[in-house]
Formats: sequence, C-alpha cells, structure tokens
Amino acid sequence: RIDGARLWDSLMEMAKVGPGLRGGNNRQTLTDADREGRDLFKRWCEEAGMSVGVDSMGNMFARLEGAEPDLDPVMMGSHLDTQPTGGKYDGVLGVLAGLEVVRSIRDRGITPRRPIVVVNWTNEEGTRFAPAMLSSGVFAGVHTQGWAYAREDAEGKRFGDELARIGYVGEEPVGQRPMHAMFELHIEQGPILEAEGRDIGVVTHGQGLSWTQVTVTGKESHTGSTPMPMRRNAGLGMARILDKVDEIAWSHKPHAVGAAGHIEVFPNSRNVIPGKAVFTVDFRSPELSVIEDMEARLRTEGQKIADEMGLEIAFEKVGGFDPVPFDEGCVDAVRRAAEKLGYSHREIISGAGHDACWIARVAPTAMIMCPCVDGLSHNEDEEISRDWAAAGCDVLLHAVLETAEI
Amino acid sequence: RIDGARLWDSLMEMAKVGPGLRGGNNRQTLTDADREGRDLFKRWCEEAGMSVGVDSMGNMFARLEGAEPDLDPVMMGSHLDTQPTGGKYDGVLGVLAGLEVVRSIRDRGITPRRPIVVVNWTNEEGTRFAPAMLSSGVFAGVHTQGWAYAREDAEGKRFGDELARIGYVGEEPVGQRPMHAMFELHIEQGPILEAEGRDIGVVTHGQGLSWTQVTVTGKESHTGSTPMPMRRNAGLGMARILDKVDEIAWSHKPHAVGAAGHIEVFPNSRNVIPGKAVFTVDFRSPELSVIEDMEARLRTEGQKIADEMGLEIAFEKVGGFDPVPFDEGCVDAVRRAAEKLGYSHREIISGAGHDACWIARVAPTAMIMCPCVDGLSHNEDEEISRDWAAAGCDVLLHAVLETAEI
Ligand SMILES: NC(=O)NCCC(=O)O
Ligand SMILES: NC(=O)NCCC(=O)O
Repeated sequence: RIDGARLWDSLMEMAKVGPGLRGGNNRQTLTDADREGRDLFKRWCEEAGMSVGVDSMGNMFARLEGAEPDLDPVMMGSHLDTQPTGGKYDGVLGVLAGLEVVRSIRDRGITPRRPIVVVNWTNEEGTRFAPAMLSSGVFAGVHTQGWAYAREDAEGKRFGDELARIGYVGEEPVGQRPMHAMFELHIEQGPILEAEGRDIGVVTHGQGLSWTQVTVTGKESHTGSTPMPMRRNAGLGMARILDKVDEIAWSHKPHAVGAAGHIEVFPNSRNVIPGKAVFTVDFRSPELSVIEDMEARLRTEGQKIADEMGLEIAFEKVGGFDPVPFDEGCVDAVRRAAEKLGYSHREIISGAGHDACWIARVAPTAMIMCPCVDGLSHNEDEEISRDWAAAGCDVLLHAVLETAEI
Repeated sequence: RIDGARLWDSLMEMAKVGPGLRGGNNRQTLTDADREGRDLFKRWCEEAGMSVGVDSMGNMFARLEGAEPDLDPVMMGSHLDTQPTGGKYDGVLGVLAGLEVVRSIRDRGITPRRPIVVVNWTNEEGTRFAPAMLSSGVFAGVHTQGWAYAREDAEGKRFGDELARIGYVGEEPVGQRPMHAMFELHIEQGPILEAEGRDIGVVTHGQGLSWTQVTVTGKESHTGSTPMPMRRNAGLGMARILDKVDEIAWSHKPHAVGAAGHIEVFPNSRNVIPGKAVFTVDFRSPELSVIEDMEARLRTEGQKIADEMGLEIAFEKVGGFDPVPFDEGCVDAVRRAAEKLGYSHREIISGAGHDACWIARVAPTAMIMCPCVDGLSHNEDEEISRDWAAAGCDVLLHAVLETAEI
C-alpha cells in the first residue's frame, strides 16, 4: 500500500500554489502559478530519484529507470492545471498519486523490469485555451503543434508564446516517447460512486464531447429609443438558443448532457441592445450518434431561431472527441488490483474528458476513478476524503506494478 | 442662422478623440480620451471668449457674460462621453451646438441680457459607472456626491478616484449654479422624425426608465459529469428570464420597451455550469404605472423561474427615473423657433434618458431633437446629416436668444 498521509501532504502543498478565493485553486494553464506548480513537481520528482524531461508542448515526463531500460515504460499521470475556480484534486490527484507510487516503490527497494514515467499533461482544462486536453491531443497526433501554438486566450495571447514565457518549451519533440501502457487516476467529478458507497470506479469508456461556439449577430442599438419591432437583439436570440440546448439534452435520457458555460455579449453595456452574442455549447454522450444528433439539432434549431428574429448565426466546432473504449487488458489490471486490495468497485463511464481519452489512441490505456463529495467538481468546494485518495492510489500502484512486470 | 460648416468641422474634430474601431467613438467617461475631449472643448470655449468653471462632479460650465451679469444664465448642453462602441453625435451634438450658438452670437456682436452657459455633464452614458446621467443627477439633488464617488466600474475603480485621476475635480461645489432655463439639443436615437421627414422634434416629455440588476445563483459544476437532474444552471435561469423580459415589454404595446444589454456569467469557462449570472434589465415607458408593472412582473416571474430551477435570485435597482414633462414655456420657445425658421416639426417623447430629464427638476427645461439615420444610436454607425445638425442648432440658437432676452 502507498503512504496515504504523504500523498495527502503533497496534495495540500500543491494546493498552496495558485490558491483560489474560496479554498480551491486558480492555477490556469501557462500562468505564473502553473510554472510554480510545475517547478515544485519537478523538484519532488528529482528528489524521488527521477529524471525529468519536457517536450515541445510542455508535457513533463518524470522517469524512474527500470531493470531493463530499453523496454517501453509504463506511464501514469494527469494534469496540474486547474479551472479558474477549480478544486484541489481534479487532475492534481492523478499526477501526485503517480509520484506517490514511485516514492512507495523506492521505499521498498523494488525495481520493475520496465521504466515508470509520471506525466503532467499541459492544458487539460481548456478554459484559457480551447480545446481541453490540448497537449495530450497533440501527443496523440490529433492536433498539430502549430495549430496548438496558435490557440489564443481571451486577451489574444497565444499558447506558444505563453509556454515560452513560463520557460516550459522542452527540446524533446512531442509524441516521440514510446509507451507500453498508460494509467490515469482521477476523481469521478460525478455522483455515482459516492451514492453507491464504492471506493473505486473501473473506467471502461469515456463519453464523447462536442463543443460548438455559436456567434449570433444582430444590431447594436439604444435600449430606450429603439421600438420593439425594430430590435435585432443578439442576446435574446442567445437566450432562446440556450433554452433549446437544454431541451435537446433532456430529449436523450438518461445519459446525454448539454449546457453553455461560456457566454458573452457585445458591447455589454446596460443601455445597448447586444449586437453580438458568443457562447460555447457543450454536448456529451457515451454514444456518438447521440452527440451527432444533438450537434445537428443545435444548428437547425439555432438557425430557425435566428431566422425568426432577423439575426445572423454562425457555428464553429472548437473541440470534440468521440466516445472512447479503454484497453481491455489495462481495464482488467485495474479491476484485478481493486479485487486484490479488497476495495469495493464498479464499472463506470467517465463523464468528463481526460488526457487518457487521447492517449488511448496511441497506447493501451485505462483510468481509475475515486469518489468526490456530492459529485462536485469544477468548483472550489470540490472535496474528497483521504481514504478515497489512498484507495485510488493503491489501485494505481498495483495496476502499474503488474503492468511494469515487477 | 448658425454656421453649419463650422459646427460640422467641430463635430469631426472631436470625433478624432477616442476613435472607435468602426468609425464611431469610444470615449467613455473618465478615461484618458474623455480628458482629452474635455481639454479640447475647454480650449475652444476659451477661444470663443468664455470662461470655463468645473464643479466637484467634473461638470464643465463655459460662460459667456450677459449684459446683466447678475441675472440667472440660460444654459445649453449635453455630454461629451460616449458608449464603448458609440456614435459621433449622441451627446456631442448638444455640447458643440451650444458652442456654435455662442460663436454665432459673438460673430454678430450680440450681447443678450442674461449670461449664456454651455454645459458638459459628466458620465451621461452610465456604461462604465451606473447609473446613466450620474452627474446631472447629483446636480439636481437626486443622488449625493458621496454615493456617486463610490460608484465602481467593472474593474472596481471608483468614480471619485477616476475623476481625480483625469484632473477634473473642480473646486465649485456641485449644484450651486443658478439657472434661468436649460435647453438640450440631442439626436432622436429613434426612427420617428426621419420616417416622417421632419427636421425638428419638439420634445414634450421624456419616458421613464428602470434598471434592475439581477443576480441568479446556482452551483458551479462540471458540464460533462454532472447529470442533468443535478444541475443548478444559473446561465439557463438567466436565459429564461431574458425571454420573459421580452414578453413583459411586448405585453404593453405600443410604447413600452425592455431588454438586457449587460450580461455576465461566472466563472465563464466552457466546461463549468455557470454558478452565477448577473445581468441588468432595462425597462422604459412614458407611463409610470407601466414601468412599475414591468418591474413588479420581473421580480415575480424571475422568482418563479428561479424557484422552479432550484436557483437563488436577487434584484437590485441600479438606476431609474420617472417619466418627465418638460417646461411648457421652454417647449413653446422651441416650437416658436422652429416655426419662425420654417423647419418642419412635431411633438415627440424622448425614448432615451437625458441630462435634461434631471435638470427639469430644478429649472425650466426643454429639449430639441433632430433625426438620425435609421433611428440608429449606441452604435458606431450612428449617422446624421449636416442639414439636420444645422437645423437643430438654429432652433437652439433662437430658443436660447429669446429666453436670454436679446
Ligand atoms: N476532467 C476534466 O474536467 N477535464 C476537462 C475537460 C472536460 O471538460 O471534460
Ligand atoms: N441619450 C442616451 O443615450 N442616454 C443614455 C441614457 C439612456 O440609456 O437613455
């Protein structure tokens, strides 16, 4: 078993970097806080006897040598970046549990045949630079590095420039590292495990996602002196589409979900009818056909609403991935580890996107989930228990040791 | 008659200060551009033989001495601040037409009995610091100066600090200037005069306004892994209320209007269900009872929507004024001037709020309107013709000369 107290201490120490306003974290990707978190992780890895490499997307790989260094390594990891009002565990647990696995292995003087690598993937959250899971996506060949470097944040700063600014453009070309397998431990971010009192989720699939950025264009005019029939209110068009998005998601019960988290109107002045509204619709489902249906209906219904109101509308897909089945062998390794350790478990589908979803395209991959309080995530109040964290890390340890051929 | 070419030149010269991105202006109140515009206006006034005083709210008063300096002066004016994507005439025309009236009077060597004062009122637009017409409101005793100084912009900067920063805190206490009468020339910002081919609107009333800032509170959570029944989506609640606002305004045909120009969600991240939405609803009508009804329904219906969705809701009135009747004597002076000059005219109700609406509480006041193309305002494409501007300024000249007892 791993050292639960040491794992928890590391989580609390990392949470001091980029603190949020209400007890969580704001350590958004490629900010100074992100750099500070990376530096701390690097130091800890070196202290644990690992050598740290960085690739051209800023992905960090901390390597513990195996008895047979030429064999492909087993990877574990997740991300250290957070939402602007994020929790202390989303992503961070998966990285620091990887570190704790290595610390525990070294405590026992074990040397597996295969090298073991702990990874921190850059920009998983996708808040500052869309899409989410950007750098694992480049690693897996889904996006090109040039496209990724050109992503802009709300202030027009580019991903590539910000990565250079924090000093994390590594010399290693992205996507070249061989991988025998990869495991990602993550909090569930949903309510199922806690409700059923299970310690471990054996993740068999990740549901798919579609992000469509919608731009509604009307005409800026005065809120007082423009008669109602002459208005072309882009904000009102947006409101009607947001209601429709909700209706579309509900129509695919029980699994599909839909909402917009990103919403802006221009010029955003109290006495100007919005001339433009921009928002991003997030649809998800474990079934590709359902995602495709929701996307298509957003376009049809959105166009209809715009036409009725004399508005222009444009749709741009800014992120998406198909539902992913994880590798059966790796999933079995997770299940066996939970069994052996006596943790209660169930199969589960990941509701969120994870770096593992992209890596599954290029290497055998699986995920382990642990419960979180009230299923709450992407909220500073995100919480887990020490026992849940330790159980997840124990399962990670055993799945990795088996796969690394101890 | 005034010098239409000179008036137009001044308008175009002022439009160079704080240019917009698409041909209009962004000269928001208490910015560096506002200071530059004020400095230019001050210089022009001094060159036209006026002395310029500034009060503690930054209101600027340029005075041309009368034959009997002890008599209360006749005022003309409006505002030089603009919307973030505003036009070149909204407010500016009323100030620079006042200057042109003085220039024309001096050209002819006329000296009226009463002094004449051209005013630039601070922060009419209310975009950066709510509410609109802030400083004419303090002048008229509707708000206290302390309350106004404490108004904050979106970045948390205070009105008082920003006024000091641009160097426009005058020594004269606000609200002390005696006034015999005040006239404000303004573009209509609506479609009526142009549609009917009239040169001049004789403004008999200003419609009333109510600004209610609504805060809807739900719970931030993950857009992917939070099941639909567990969501408390503040953005969706806002969307439903925005649709209701439109329905409420339409229910009072033909005159009432309603919309929200200011809309924000938090944390505004693509994969976070909004935990909070803040927006400002702008309702207007020439009838007080209609405004009161719309406000009450917003609260009742908003509460109902929030309750149904498990959301919290709070309402705060952040601006408002009752419908105003203008002074009959001053209105008659405007009508007589239009008649005498042979301009086509009609009575009209102002759809927008104006500094004149507050000043009407403390002095006999009236407004003159000229058409604008397509009724468009609060838009960089706002346009008027030189003839319209000159006709409005001619009427201002004659109404003011009659009132100042030439
Ligand atoms: N795990 C997680 O929150 N990832 C961010 C990408 C997503 O929105 O699912
Ligand atoms: N005239 C004008 O646009 N004033 C701003 C205040 C309002 O919203 O009516």
